[in-house]
Amino acid sequence: KQIILLPGDGIGKEIMESAKYVLNTVASEFGHRFTFHSHAIGGDAIDQYGTPLPDDTINACEQADAILLGAVGGKKWEALPGNIRPEQGLLGIRKKLGLFANLRPIQGFAPLLHASPLKEEVVNGSDILIIRELTGGLYFGKPSERIKDGKAVVDTLYYERSEMERIVEKAFESARLRRKHLTSVDKANVLESSRLWREVVNEKSKEYPDVTVEHMLVDAAAMKLITAPTQFDVIVTENLFGDILSDEASVLTGSLGMLPSASIRSDGVGLYEPVHGSAPDIAGKGIANPLGMILSAALMLRHSLQMEEEANEIEEAVRACLEQGYHTADLSVKNGKQVGTKEMTEAVVENIT
Amino acid sequence: KQIILLPGDGIGKEIMESAKYVLNTVASEFGHRFTFHSHAIGGDAIDQYGTPLPDDTINACEQADAILLGAVGGKKWEALPGNIRPEQGLLGIRKKLGLFANLRPIQGFAPLLHASPLKEEVVNGSDILIIRELTGGLYFGKPSERIKDGKAVVDTLYYERSEMERIVEKAFESARLRRKHLTSVDKANVLESSRLWREVVNEKSKEYPDVTVEHMLVDAAAMKLITAPTQFDVIVTENLFGDILSDEASVLTGSLGMLPSASIRSDGVGLYEPVHGSAPDIAGKGIANPLGMILSAALMLRHSLQMEEEANEIEEAVRACLEQGYHTADLSVKNGKQVGTKEMTEAVVENIT
Ligand SMILES: CC(C)[C@H](C(=O)O)[C@@H](O)C(=O)O
Ligand SMILES: CC(C)[C@H](C(=O)O)[C@@H](O)C(=O)O
Repeated sequence: KQIILLPGDGIGKEIMESAKYVLNTVASEFGHRFTFHSHAIGGDAIDQYGTPLPDDTINACEQADAILLGAVGGKKWEALPGNIRPEQGLLGIRKKLGLFANLRPIQGFAPLLHASPLKEEVVNGSDILIIRELTGGLYFGKPSERIKDGKAVVDTLYYERSEMERIVEKAFESARLRRKHLTSVDKANVLESSRLWREVVNEKSKEYPDVTVEHMLVDAAAMKLITAPTQFDVIVTENLFGDILSDEASVLTGSLGMLPSASIRSDGVGLYEPVHGSAPDIAGKGIANPLGMILSAALMLRHSLQMEEEANEIEEAVRACLEQGYHTADLSVKNGKQVGTKEMTEAVVENIT
Repeated sequence: KQIILLPGDGIGKEIMESAKYVLNTVASEFGHRFTFHSHAIGGDAIDQYGTPLPDDTINACEQADAILLGAVGGKKWEALPGNIRPEQGLLGIRKKLGLFANLRPIQGFAPLLHASPLKEEVVNGSDILIIRELTGGLYFGKPSERIKDGKAVVDTLYYERSEMERIVEKAFESARLRRKHLTSVDKANVLESSRLWREVVNEKSKEYPDVTVEHMLVDAAAMKLITAPTQFDVIVTENLFGDILSDEASVLTGSLGMLPSASIRSDGVGLYEPVHGSAPDIAGKGIANPLGMILSAALMLRHSLQMEEEANEIEEAVRACLEQGYHTADLSVKNGKQVGTKEMTEAVVENIT
């Protein structure tokens, strides 16, 4: 299986090494063969090639079975103009490959829950899957430009009905595999696009009578994620609402550094990356938390390579490490043992073999 | 002073009575004369006149010094088409009167803080003012319609530079009166409108060298409101981001029912309403919490009628009530006394006189 690695910026390189090591361990245990090829993206690509998304990287990704991405961005490139910023690499690869479904599972880890900003009785037991549309909406609609001699500006929220249908379908399928509850988030009291979204959800729901559907306004959802996170199962929403809500949700369990994400399309090709950023302040120090990246590799095995058992093996190994008290500097575990990136990765590998 | 009352739907009528009573008490104590006229808005106006914002209501509001609004909306009107929904009354009055600055102060009340979903050490001491642009952006941009034979849809995020300038100015002025820290929230890594927004903020900041400015992406802000709410002072942002973030922030202190809001324009005319909704499930039962409405009346005295002392008097009376243990059914106070709308209002009045 061809896996493209895009380590990117900051701690991206270090945590990518961890993912590779874990994947190789799984491969030898289960008798698979993965081939890895690294390519440049983000600030790293700007430094080397003057563009955040070189053609060579796009071509490689187009041939791949799956892609692992570390992180992009950093202060160093912040002053650059909009079109050669590191994030453009990420937006570009999502769009070029048509990775329309962003999956963000958010689940607490018992030994880490004490670090949540929420009271334990509020957050305990929450297990949410946010499904965000990733290649449409305000992110890519045209026009997106200054008008009237720079005296005004316009961005465009554009969706095709078919784009809504495929993500909503993905959400129903996912809900069916979980607790069969789907919350569709929109702003139907204001936006025409949200009213179409709601129609599409209602229409599709007829094909999934076993899934309970609830419509929620985005402002209400932003509240309820905090007051009653356990009441959500699967959430589906458009690109920008998904960006905001999934980041909001990512801090609920007190372990942002643990969270993986998947960006996939219908044929199963996908890009997998941790939710956390490139953390330039700690890059190269060997203290970054590799678990979000490692859990992203597990998601890759599950969603792109149909290796459910192997994915579970990694996820269980990560849980076991935390229960054994291992944690990196960004986390805290009661009576735990603080370790660096390499030791943490070793601990995961130990728990696999 | 001419005050227009728009009780609206659900508990709107009951809590409006409370505000009127409190205002009359203040008037007689300070020797003012307020005249009140009630008009229809929202679902109530749909039932009576077939439109959520009758001309008569608009005309009355256009002559007013200030407007108090209870709440609009309810299940009863949810099936109606987009343009005759209760919320259109609210959106319409904001736009018609040019109430471009939405102010949402969020501050905890010591006796209520235990009901926050956040840990006390996280939320304690938070005191945030969210300033939301209220008459531009995706809410009003055109086109907002189905296209391509219903196969696609478009909404438009449109801003004039001057609309950004006036709200940003308001935010700097407000920050100057507080802790002199301004967080400007945008999505400048994706939206052209956000890049213009950031330019406007940077330009204006030169006129306010005493105010520290920080730019934050909306997804990061959604996280930080939960993990570190005490690190914010004034937040300024565009309409839709403000809708989401201000609702998110409103649940942090555990007392949504207490929160007031102001929607004002440059000459001081404003509309004041509690943040909570119309709560149709408890309407008419006499148990609604009137304090958000009463505190909105206090904001009205401060911002539209230049009665700072009178506003403080009301705010102190509300605090005193809570310290005396009075609370409505939506709140809880340790060793407190649960009361209905009328008793709670009486308690406030007692603390004024
Ligand atoms: C970097 C940025 C453009 C991106 C987004 O907004 O999609 C990020 O926030 C994310 O959620 O992956
Ligand atoms: C009712 C709705 C249109 C409104 C908005 O989105 O502005 C409400 O959520 C608010 O924040 O006042």
